[in-house]
Amino acid sequence: MSAGLQERLAVVLVETRNPLNIGAVARAMSNFGFSDLRLVRPYDAAFREAVSAVGAGELMRSARVHPGLGEALADCSLVVGTAGIEAREPELPVLRLERGVRVLRRHLSSARAAIVFGSEKSGLSNEDLSYCRMLVRIPTRREHESMNLGQAVAVALYELIRQPGAARQMPQAAQLAEGEALERITLLLKEMMALSGEYHFEEQKSAEEKLRQLVRRTGLREADAPIWMGILRQAIWRLKNPA
Amino acid sequence: MSAGLQERLAVVLVETRNPLNIGAVARAMSNFGFSDLRLVRPYDAAFREAVSAVGAGELMRSARVHPGLGEALADCSLVVGTAGIEAREPELPVLRLERGVRVLRRHLSSARAAIVFGSEKSGLSNEDLSYCRMLVRIPTRREHESMNLGQAVAVALYELIRQPGAARQMPQAAQLAEGEALERITLLLKEMMALSGEYHFEEQKSAEEKLRQLVRRTGLREADAPIWMGILRQAIWRLKNPA
Repeated sequence: MSAGLQERLAVVLVETRNPLNIGAVARAMSNFGFSDLRLVRPYDAAFREAVSAVGAGELMRSARVHPGLGEALADCSLVVGTAGIEAREPELPVLRLERGVRVLRRHLSSARAAIVFGSEKSGLSNEDLSYCRMLVRIPTRREHESMNLGQAVAVALYELIRQPGAARQMPQAAQLAEGEALERITLLLKEMMALSGEYHFEEQKSAEEKLRQLVRRTGLREADAPIWMGILRQAIWRLKNPA
Repeated sequence: MSAGLQERLAVVLVETRNPLNIGAVARAMSNFGFSDLRLVRPYDAAFREAVSAVGAGELMRSARVHPGLGEALADCSLVVGTAGIEAREPELPVLRLERGVRVLRRHLSSARAAIVFGSEKSGLSNEDLSYCRMLVRIPTRREHESMNLGQAVAVALYELIRQPGAARQMPQAAQLAEGEALERITLLLKEMMALSGEYHFEEQKSAEEKLRQLVRRTGLREADAPIWMGILRQAIWRLKNPA
Protein backbone atom coordinates (compact mmCIF):
# COMPACT_ATOMS: atom_id res chain seq x y z
CA MET A 1 0.00 0.00 0.00
CA SER A 2 1.21 3.51 -0.79
CA ALA A 3 0.41 5.85 2.08
CA GLY A 4 0.32 8.83 -0.27
CA LEU A 5 -2.45 7.35 -2.35
CA GLN A 6 -4.64 6.75 0.67
CA GLU A 7 -4.04 10.21 2.12
CA ARG A 8 -4.98 11.97 -1.11
CA LEU A 9 -8.37 10.34 -1.66
CA ALA A 10 -11.55 11.76 -0.17
CA VAL A 11 -14.56 9.47 0.09
CA VAL A 12 -17.67 11.62 -0.36
CA LEU A 13 -21.17 10.41 0.53
CA VAL A 14 -24.09 12.48 -0.76
CA GLU A 15 -27.39 12.47 1.16
CA THR A 16 -26.83 9.12 2.81
CA ARG A 17 -30.06 8.03 4.49
CA ASN A 18 -29.01 5.24 6.83
CA PRO A 19 -26.43 6.14 9.52
CA LEU A 20 -25.46 2.45 9.70
CA ASN A 21 -24.21 2.76 6.14
CA ILE A 22 -21.99 5.69 7.13
CA GLY A 23 -20.52 3.51 9.87
CA ALA A 24 -19.96 0.66 7.40
CA VAL A 25 -18.20 3.03 4.99
CA ALA A 26 -15.98 4.32 7.82
CA ARG A 27 -15.05 0.78 8.77
CA ALA A 28 -14.10 -0.22 5.23
CA MET A 29 -12.05 2.97 4.86
CA SER A 30 -10.18 2.18 8.06
CA ASN A 31 -9.64 -1.46 6.97
CA PHE A 32 -7.96 -0.29 3.80
CA GLY A 33 -6.09 2.70 5.27
CA PHE A 34 -8.20 5.64 4.07
CA SER A 35 -9.21 8.41 6.48
CA ASP A 36 -10.78 11.38 4.66
CA LEU A 37 -14.57 10.95 4.88
CA ARG A 38 -16.84 13.81 3.76
CA LEU A 39 -20.60 13.87 4.09
CA VAL A 40 -22.90 16.06 2.04
CA ARG A 41 -26.28 16.68 3.66
CA PRO A 42 -26.59 13.34 5.53
CA TYR A 43 -30.27 12.66 6.31
CA ASP A 44 -29.62 11.98 9.96
CA ALA A 45 -27.81 14.94 11.52
CA ALA A 46 -27.11 12.81 14.60
CA PHE A 47 -25.34 10.12 12.57
CA ARG A 48 -22.24 10.26 14.79
CA GLU A 49 -24.25 9.17 17.79
CA ALA A 50 -26.35 6.69 15.84
CA VAL A 51 -23.41 4.68 14.63
CA SER A 52 -20.84 2.30 15.98
CA ALA A 53 -18.19 2.00 13.30
CA VAL A 54 -16.19 -0.96 14.62
CA GLY A 55 -12.57 0.12 14.84
CA ALA A 56 -13.20 3.38 13.00
CA GLY A 57 -14.47 5.70 15.75
CA GLU A 58 -11.76 8.32 15.20
CA LEU A 59 -12.48 8.37 11.48
CA MET A 60 -16.21 8.87 12.14
CA ARG A 61 -15.53 11.74 14.56
CA SER A 62 -13.25 13.53 12.10
CA ALA A 63 -15.69 13.18 9.16
CA ARG A 64 -16.69 16.61 7.86
CA VAL A 65 -20.23 17.59 6.93
CA HIS A 66 -20.79 19.91 3.96
CA PRO A 67 -23.94 21.72 2.79
CA GLY A 68 -23.20 21.02 -0.88
CA LEU A 69 -21.10 18.79 -3.10
CA GLY A 70 -19.18 21.77 -4.49
CA GLU A 71 -17.92 22.71 -1.03
CA ALA A 72 -16.98 19.11 -0.28
CA LEU A 73 -14.87 18.92 -3.45
CA ALA A 74 -13.12 22.28 -3.19
CA ASP A 75 -9.58 20.85 -2.91
CA CYS A 76 -9.96 17.87 -5.27
CA SER A 77 -8.64 18.11 -8.84
CA LEU A 78 -10.25 14.87 -10.02
CA VAL A 79 -13.78 13.86 -9.09
CA VAL A 80 -14.98 10.36 -9.90
CA GLY A 81 -18.64 9.48 -9.48
CA THR A 82 -20.09 6.01 -9.01
CA ALA A 83 -23.03 4.91 -11.09
CA GLY A 84 -25.02 2.03 -12.46
CA ILE A 85 -25.17 0.84 -16.04
CA GLU A 86 -27.79 3.36 -16.96
CA ALA A 87 -26.00 6.51 -15.95
CA ARG A 88 -28.34 9.41 -16.39
CA GLU A 89 -25.64 11.78 -17.57
CA PRO A 90 -24.63 10.46 -20.98
CA GLU A 91 -22.01 13.17 -21.40
CA LEU A 92 -19.72 11.53 -18.85
CA PRO A 93 -17.49 8.57 -19.70
CA VAL A 94 -18.47 5.47 -17.70
CA LEU A 95 -15.57 3.12 -16.95
CA ARG A 96 -15.62 -0.31 -15.35
CA LEU A 97 -14.12 -0.16 -11.87
CA GLU A 98 -10.91 -1.94 -12.92
CA ARG A 99 -10.22 0.71 -15.55
CA GLY A 100 -11.56 3.75 -13.68
CA VAL A 101 -9.42 3.01 -10.65
CA ARG A 102 -6.35 2.94 -12.87
CA VAL A 103 -7.07 6.51 -13.92
CA LEU A 104 -7.81 7.47 -10.32
CA ARG A 105 -4.64 5.83 -9.01
CA ARG A 106 -2.50 7.66 -11.54
CA HIS A 107 -4.01 10.97 -10.45
CA LEU A 108 -3.57 10.16 -6.75
CA SER A 109 0.14 9.61 -7.25
CA SER A 110 0.55 13.38 -7.26
CA ALA A 111 -2.76 15.14 -6.52
CA ARG A 112 -5.98 15.00 -4.54
CA ALA A 113 -9.07 13.24 -5.84
CA ALA A 114 -12.52 12.32 -4.61
CA ILE A 115 -14.77 9.34 -5.19
CA VAL A 116 -18.45 10.20 -4.76
CA PHE A 117 -21.29 7.86 -3.77
CA GLY A 118 -24.94 8.91 -4.02
CA SER A 119 -27.82 8.13 -1.71
CA GLU A 120 -29.01 4.55 -1.20
CA LYS A 121 -32.30 5.18 -2.98
CA SER A 122 -31.51 7.34 -5.94
CA GLY A 123 -27.74 7.45 -6.42
CA LEU A 124 -26.20 10.67 -7.73
CA SER A 125 -28.45 13.40 -9.12
CA ASN A 126 -27.76 15.15 -12.39
CA GLU A 127 -26.48 18.12 -10.40
CA ASP A 128 -24.11 15.84 -8.47
CA LEU A 129 -22.92 14.31 -11.74
CA SER A 130 -22.09 17.74 -13.13
CA TYR A 131 -19.18 17.87 -10.65
CA CYS A 132 -17.71 14.57 -11.90
CA ARG A 133 -15.18 14.15 -14.66
CA MET A 134 -15.93 10.46 -15.08
CA LEU A 135 -18.04 7.67 -13.64
CA VAL A 136 -16.95 4.25 -12.48
CA ARG A 137 -19.22 1.23 -12.41
CA ILE A 138 -18.74 -1.84 -10.25
CA PRO A 139 -19.32 -4.80 -12.60
CA THR A 140 -22.49 -6.15 -11.02
CA ARG A 141 -25.15 -8.14 -12.89
CA ARG A 142 -27.58 -6.16 -15.00
CA GLU A 143 -30.45 -8.05 -13.33
CA HIS A 144 -29.35 -6.98 -9.84
CA GLU A 145 -27.17 -4.00 -10.24
CA SER A 146 -27.61 -1.99 -7.07
CA MET A 147 -25.13 -2.71 -4.31
CA ASN A 148 -25.38 -1.95 -0.62
CA LEU A 149 -23.53 1.32 -0.02
CA GLY A 150 -21.02 -0.05 2.51
CA GLN A 151 -20.25 -3.00 0.25
CA ALA A 152 -19.83 -0.78 -2.82
CA VAL A 153 -17.34 1.44 -0.97
CA ALA A 154 -15.44 -1.62 0.30
CA VAL A 155 -15.12 -3.03 -3.22
CA ALA A 156 -14.04 0.30 -4.74
CA LEU A 157 -11.39 0.90 -2.07
CA TYR A 158 -10.17 -2.69 -2.35
CA GLU A 159 -9.64 -2.19 -6.09
CA LEU A 160 -7.55 0.88 -5.21
CA ILE A 161 -5.24 -0.91 -2.79
CA ARG A 162 -5.08 -4.31 -4.46
CA GLN A 163 -1.71 -5.32 -5.85
CA PRO A 164 -1.79 -6.95 -9.27
CA GLY A 165 1.66 -8.42 -8.63
CA ALA A 166 0.40 -10.28 -5.59
CA ALA A 167 -1.58 -12.60 -7.86
CA ARG A 168 1.58 -13.78 -9.57
CA GLN A 169 3.66 -14.38 -6.47
CA MET A 170 4.14 -17.86 -5.17
CA PRO A 171 4.32 -17.13 -1.47
CA GLN A 172 5.73 -19.78 0.77
CA ALA A 173 7.39 -21.60 -2.09
CA ALA A 174 10.41 -21.87 0.21
CA GLN A 175 8.27 -23.85 2.60
CA LEU A 176 7.49 -26.57 0.08
CA ALA A 177 9.36 -29.83 0.28
CA GLU A 178 12.33 -30.08 -2.05
CA GLY A 179 13.13 -32.69 -4.66
CA GLU A 180 15.23 -34.91 -2.42
CA ALA A 181 12.52 -35.27 0.21
CA LEU A 182 9.91 -35.87 -2.50
CA GLU A 183 12.07 -38.56 -4.06
CA ARG A 184 12.57 -40.32 -0.73
CA ILE A 185 8.84 -40.25 -0.17
CA THR A 186 8.26 -41.58 -3.67
CA LEU A 187 10.63 -44.50 -3.06
CA LEU A 188 9.10 -45.24 0.33
CA LEU A 189 5.66 -45.22 -1.25
CA LYS A 190 6.88 -47.52 -4.00
CA GLU A 191 8.36 -49.92 -1.44
CA MET A 192 5.18 -49.89 0.60
CA MET A 193 3.02 -50.51 -2.45
CA ALA A 194 5.25 -53.32 -3.68
CA LEU A 195 5.10 -54.92 -0.24
CA SER A 196 1.35 -54.43 -0.25
CA GLY A 197 1.20 -56.35 -3.47
CA GLU A 198 -0.74 -53.64 -5.25
CA TYR A 199 1.82 -52.91 -7.92
CA HIS A 200 4.40 -55.06 -9.60
CA PHE A 201 6.93 -52.47 -10.62
CA GLU A 202 8.83 -54.85 -12.88
CA GLU A 203 5.71 -55.35 -14.98
CA GLN A 204 4.53 -51.75 -15.04
CA LYS A 205 7.48 -49.69 -16.12
CA SER A 206 5.59 -46.44 -16.05
CA ALA A 207 4.17 -47.02 -12.60
CA GLU A 208 7.13 -45.47 -10.80
CA GLU A 209 6.99 -42.36 -12.97
CA LYS A 210 3.28 -41.98 -12.31
CA LEU A 211 3.92 -42.34 -8.63
CA ARG A 212 6.65 -39.69 -8.73
CA GLN A 213 4.32 -37.25 -10.47
CA LEU A 214 1.58 -38.06 -7.99
CA VAL A 215 3.82 -37.12 -5.07
CA ARG A 216 4.98 -33.95 -6.75
CA ARG A 217 1.44 -32.83 -7.45
CA THR A 218 0.64 -32.72 -3.75
CA GLY A 219 2.60 -29.55 -2.99
CA LEU A 220 3.86 -31.25 0.14
CA ARG A 221 5.31 -28.88 2.73
CA GLU A 222 8.90 -29.28 3.87
CA ALA A 223 7.98 -29.45 7.55
CA ASP A 224 5.53 -32.26 6.82
CA ALA A 225 7.93 -34.44 4.83
CA PRO A 226 9.51 -36.22 7.85
CA ILE A 227 6.03 -37.00 9.16
CA TRP A 228 5.04 -38.67 5.88
CA MET A 229 8.32 -40.57 5.77
CA GLY A 230 7.74 -41.80 9.31
CA ILE A 231 4.27 -43.02 8.45
CA LEU A 232 5.52 -44.85 5.37
CA ARG A 233 8.54 -46.37 7.15
CA GLN A 234 6.28 -47.61 9.88
CA ALA A 235 3.97 -49.24 7.34
CA ILE A 236 6.91 -50.80 5.49
CA TRP A 237 8.30 -52.19 8.73
CA ARG A 238 4.96 -53.74 9.58
CA LEU A 239 4.55 -55.15 6.07
CA LYS A 240 7.97 -56.80 6.42
CA ASN A 241 7.29 -57.90 9.98
CA PRO A 242 3.69 -59.03 10.12
CA ALA A 243 2.26 -59.15 13.60
CA MET B 1 -18.30 -13.19 -16.19
CA SER B 2 -18.24 -16.92 -16.65
CA ALA B 3 -21.49 -18.49 -15.56
CA GLY B 4 -19.76 -21.79 -14.82
CA LEU B 5 -17.44 -20.26 -12.28
CA GLN B 6 -20.30 -18.69 -10.37
CA GLU B 7 -22.39 -21.85 -10.40
CA ARG B 8 -19.59 -23.98 -9.00
CA LEU B 9 -18.77 -21.86 -5.96
CA ALA B 10 -20.55 -22.31 -2.62
CA VAL B 11 -20.37 -19.45 -0.12
CA VAL B 12 -20.39 -21.01 3.35
CA LEU B 13 -21.07 -18.99 6.52
CA VAL B 14 -20.25 -20.65 9.84
CA GLU B 15 -22.14 -19.61 12.99
CA THR B 16 -23.13 -16.20 11.71
CA ARG B 17 -24.59 -14.19 14.59
CA ASN B 18 -26.32 -11.27 12.92
CA PRO B 19 -29.09 -12.14 10.43
CA LEU B 20 -28.54 -8.74 8.77
CA ASN B 21 -25.10 -9.96 7.77
CA ILE B 22 -26.63 -13.02 6.11
CA GLY B 23 -28.85 -10.68 4.13
CA ALA B 24 -25.87 -8.53 3.15
CA VAL B 25 -23.96 -11.62 1.99
CA ALA B 26 -26.96 -12.76 -0.09
CA ARG B 27 -27.20 -9.34 -1.71
CA ALA B 28 -23.50 -9.25 -2.65
CA MET B 29 -23.76 -12.80 -4.04
CA SER B 30 -26.72 -11.78 -6.18
CA ASN B 31 -24.94 -8.60 -7.34
CA PHE B 32 -22.02 -10.67 -8.64
CA GLY B 33 -24.04 -13.62 -9.96
CA PHE B 34 -23.47 -16.28 -7.28
CA SER B 35 -26.39 -18.28 -5.88
CA ASP B 36 -25.21 -21.18 -3.69
CA LEU B 37 -25.37 -19.97 -0.07
CA ARG B 38 -24.87 -22.49 2.76
CA LEU B 39 -25.24 -21.74 6.45
CA VAL B 40 -23.69 -23.80 9.22
CA ARG B 41 -25.42 -23.40 12.59
CA PRO B 42 -26.61 -19.80 12.17
CA TYR B 43 -27.29 -18.25 15.58
CA ASP B 44 -30.74 -17.04 14.63
CA ALA B 45 -32.82 -19.93 13.34
CA ALA B 46 -35.40 -17.41 12.11
CA PHE B 47 -32.88 -15.58 9.94
CA ARG B 48 -35.03 -15.92 6.83
CA GLU B 49 -37.79 -13.89 8.42
CA ALA B 50 -35.42 -11.47 10.13
CA VAL B 51 -33.77 -10.34 6.94
CA SER B 52 -34.60 -8.27 3.92
CA ALA B 53 -31.88 -9.03 1.39
CA VAL B 54 -32.57 -6.32 -1.18
CA GLY B 55 -32.97 -8.00 -4.55
CA ALA B 56 -31.84 -11.39 -3.22
CA GLY B 57 -35.00 -12.84 -1.67
CA GLU B 58 -34.94 -15.98 -3.81
CA LEU B 59 -31.32 -16.64 -2.92
CA MET B 60 -32.11 -16.25 0.81
CA ARG B 61 -35.03 -18.66 0.56
CA SER B 62 -32.95 -21.31 -1.19
CA ALA B 63 -30.03 -21.08 1.26
CA ARG B 64 -29.42 -24.43 2.94
CA VAL B 65 -28.75 -24.86 6.65
CA HIS B 66 -26.28 -27.54 7.80
CA PRO B 67 -25.51 -28.89 11.29
CA GLY B 68 -21.77 -29.07 10.60
CA LEU B 69 -19.15 -27.76 8.22
CA GLY B 70 -18.35 -31.27 6.98
CA GLU B 71 -21.92 -31.75 5.76
CA ALA B 72 -21.92 -28.34 4.11
CA LEU B 73 -18.77 -29.16 2.16
CA ALA B 74 -19.66 -32.70 1.07
CA ASP B 75 -19.63 -31.96 -2.69
CA CYS B 76 -16.71 -29.47 -2.78
CA SER B 77 -13.26 -30.65 -3.85
CA LEU B 78 -11.48 -27.43 -2.85
CA VAL B 79 -12.23 -25.59 0.39
CA VAL B 80 -10.77 -22.15 0.94
CA GLY B 81 -11.03 -20.50 4.34
CA THR B 82 -10.83 -16.80 5.08
CA ALA B 83 -8.59 -15.53 7.85
CA GLY B 84 -6.71 -12.63 9.30
CA ILE B 85 -2.96 -12.14 9.39
CA GLU B 86 -2.57 -14.26 12.48
CA ALA B 87 -4.17 -17.42 11.26
CA ARG B 88 -4.35 -19.87 14.12
CA GLU B 89 -3.66 -22.90 11.99
CA PRO B 90 -0.03 -22.51 10.93
CA GLU B 91 -0.11 -25.71 8.90
CA LEU B 92 -2.25 -24.07 6.24
CA PRO B 93 -0.82 -21.82 3.53
CA VAL B 94 -2.17 -18.26 3.80
CA LEU B 95 -2.42 -16.43 0.48
CA ARG B 96 -3.32 -12.80 -0.21
CA LEU B 97 -6.76 -12.59 -1.81
CA GLU B 98 -5.33 -11.69 -5.24
CA ARG B 99 -3.28 -14.89 -5.30
CA GLY B 100 -5.71 -17.17 -3.49
CA VAL B 101 -8.53 -16.31 -5.87
CA ARG B 102 -6.32 -17.28 -8.80
CA VAL B 103 -5.99 -20.78 -7.37
CA LEU B 104 -9.71 -20.84 -6.63
CA ARG B 105 -10.64 -19.64 -10.11
CA ARG B 106 -8.51 -22.31 -11.74
CA HIS B 107 -10.23 -24.98 -9.68
CA LEU B 108 -13.69 -23.59 -10.43
CA SER B 109 -13.06 -23.88 -14.15
CA SER B 110 -13.79 -27.59 -13.85
CA ALA B 111 -14.88 -28.50 -10.30
CA ARG B 112 -16.83 -27.36 -7.26
CA ALA B 113 -15.24 -25.31 -4.51
CA ALA B 114 -16.30 -23.50 -1.35
CA ILE B 115 -15.18 -20.30 0.31
CA VAL B 116 -15.81 -20.33 4.06
CA PHE B 117 -16.35 -17.33 6.35
CA GLY B 118 -16.33 -17.65 10.14
CA SER B 119 -18.48 -15.91 12.72
CA GLU B 120 -18.29 -12.13 13.18
CA LYS B 121 -16.69 -12.41 16.58
CA SER B 122 -14.20 -15.22 16.38
CA GLY B 123 -13.71 -16.17 12.73
CA LEU B 124 -13.06 -19.82 11.90
CA SER B 125 -12.26 -22.28 14.69
CA ASN B 126 -9.39 -24.74 14.51
CA GLU B 127 -11.91 -27.45 13.72
CA ASP B 128 -13.34 -25.36 10.87
CA LEU B 129 -9.81 -24.75 9.57
CA SER B 130 -9.12 -28.48 9.47
CA TYR B 131 -11.54 -28.70 6.52
CA CYS B 132 -9.65 -26.05 4.52
CA ARG B 133 -6.83 -26.66 2.08
CA MET B 134 -5.70 -23.04 2.14
CA LEU B 135 -6.59 -19.68 3.60
CA VAL B 136 -7.04 -16.37 1.83
CA ARG B 137 -6.53 -13.02 3.49
CA ILE B 138 -8.05 -9.74 2.32
CA PRO B 139 -5.17 -7.22 2.44
CA THR B 140 -6.48 -4.98 5.20
CA ARG B 141 -4.27 -2.91 7.52
CA ARG B 142 -2.62 -4.75 10.38
CA GLU B 143 -3.91 -2.05 12.76
CA HIS B 144 -7.53 -2.63 11.70
CA GLU B 145 -7.72 -6.00 10.15
CA SER B 146 -11.22 -7.25 10.85
CA MET B 147 -13.78 -6.52 8.15
CA ASN B 148 -17.53 -6.49 8.35
CA LEU B 149 -18.76 -9.89 7.12
CA GLY B 150 -20.94 -8.57 4.30
CA GLN B 151 -18.14 -6.33 3.07
CA ALA B 152 -15.56 -9.13 3.23
CA VAL B 153 -17.78 -11.40 1.12
CA ALA B 154 -18.42 -8.58 -1.38
CA VAL B 155 -14.67 -7.96 -1.79
CA ALA B 156 -13.83 -11.67 -2.14
CA LEU B 157 -16.55 -12.25 -4.76
CA TYR B 158 -15.55 -9.09 -6.62
CA GLU B 159 -11.98 -10.39 -6.86
CA LEU B 160 -13.43 -13.60 -8.36
CA ILE B 161 -15.43 -11.86 -11.09
CA ARG B 162 -13.12 -8.93 -11.80
CA GLN B 163 -11.54 -8.87 -15.25
CA PRO B 164 -7.87 -7.94 -15.31
CA GLY B 165 -8.18 -7.08 -18.99
CA ALA B 166 -10.81 -4.47 -18.28
CA ALA B 167 -8.16 -2.27 -16.67
CA ARG B 168 -6.28 -2.07 -19.93
CA GLN B 169 -9.22 -1.38 -22.21
CA MET B 170 -9.92 2.07 -23.45
CA PRO B 171 -13.70 1.94 -23.59
CA GLN B 172 -15.52 4.48 -25.62
CA ALA B 173 -12.42 5.29 -27.65
CA ALA B 174 -14.74 5.29 -30.65
CA GLN B 175 -16.67 8.12 -29.07
CA LEU B 176 -13.65 10.39 -28.92
CA ALA B 177 -13.28 13.11 -31.52
CA GLU B 178 -11.05 12.18 -34.42
CA GLY B 179 -8.01 13.97 -35.77
CA GLU B 180 -9.85 16.03 -38.36
CA ALA B 181 -12.27 17.50 -35.85
CA LEU B 182 -9.43 18.17 -33.40
CA GLU B 183 -7.44 19.93 -36.11
CA ARG B 184 -10.39 22.14 -37.06
CA ILE B 185 -10.83 23.06 -33.44
CA THR B 186 -7.12 23.77 -33.12
CA LEU B 187 -7.24 26.09 -36.12
CA LEU B 188 -10.36 27.84 -34.86
CA LEU B 189 -8.69 28.32 -31.48
CA LYS B 190 -5.61 29.68 -33.18
CA GLU B 191 -7.68 32.13 -35.21
CA MET B 192 -9.58 33.24 -32.16
CA MET B 193 -6.40 33.72 -30.16
CA ALA B 194 -4.73 35.63 -32.98
CA LEU B 195 -7.78 37.87 -33.25
CA SER B 196 -7.75 38.27 -29.49
CA GLY B 197 -4.19 39.50 -29.75
CA GLU B 198 -2.95 37.03 -27.23
CA TYR B 199 -0.58 35.22 -29.53
CA HIS B 200 1.39 36.30 -32.51
CA PHE B 201 1.84 33.06 -34.35
CA GLU B 202 4.41 34.45 -36.74
CA GLU B 203 6.71 35.22 -33.83
CA GLN B 204 6.16 32.07 -31.81
CA LYS B 205 6.70 29.19 -34.14
CA SER B 206 6.07 26.56 -31.52
CA ALA B 207 2.84 28.13 -30.33
CA GLU B 208 0.66 26.32 -32.87
CA GLU B 209 2.19 22.97 -31.96
CA LYS B 210 1.60 23.59 -28.30
CA LEU B 211 -1.98 24.51 -29.06
CA ARG B 212 -2.46 21.34 -31.06
CA GLN B 213 -1.18 19.23 -28.20
CA LEU B 214 -3.34 21.13 -25.76
CA VAL B 215 -6.46 20.30 -27.78
CA ARG B 216 -5.46 16.66 -28.12
CA ARG B 217 -4.88 16.28 -24.39
CA THR B 218 -8.50 17.12 -23.64
CA GLY B 219 -9.87 13.80 -24.84
CA LEU B 220 -12.68 15.72 -26.50
CA ARG B 221 -15.71 13.63 -27.37
CA GLU B 222 -16.88 13.40 -30.96
CA ALA B 223 -20.41 14.50 -30.15
CA ASP B 224 -19.06 17.59 -28.42
CA ALA B 225 -16.79 18.71 -31.25
CA PRO B 226 -19.46 20.65 -33.23
CA ILE B 227 -20.46 22.44 -30.04
CA TRP B 228 -16.90 23.60 -29.41
CA MET B 229 -16.56 24.64 -33.05
CA GLY B 230 -19.76 26.64 -32.83
CA ILE B 231 -18.56 28.45 -29.72
CA LEU B 232 -15.23 29.27 -31.33
CA ARG B 233 -16.78 30.37 -34.64
CA GLN B 234 -19.16 32.63 -32.77
CA ALA B 235 -16.27 34.20 -30.86
CA ILE B 236 -14.27 34.65 -34.07
CA TRP B 237 -17.22 36.29 -35.77
CA ARG B 238 -17.65 38.71 -32.89
CA LEU B 239 -13.93 39.47 -32.78
CA LYS B 240 -14.07 40.31 -36.48
CA ASN B 241 -17.32 42.21 -36.12
CA PRO B 242 -17.13 44.13 -32.87
CA ALA B 243 -20.48 45.28 -31.53
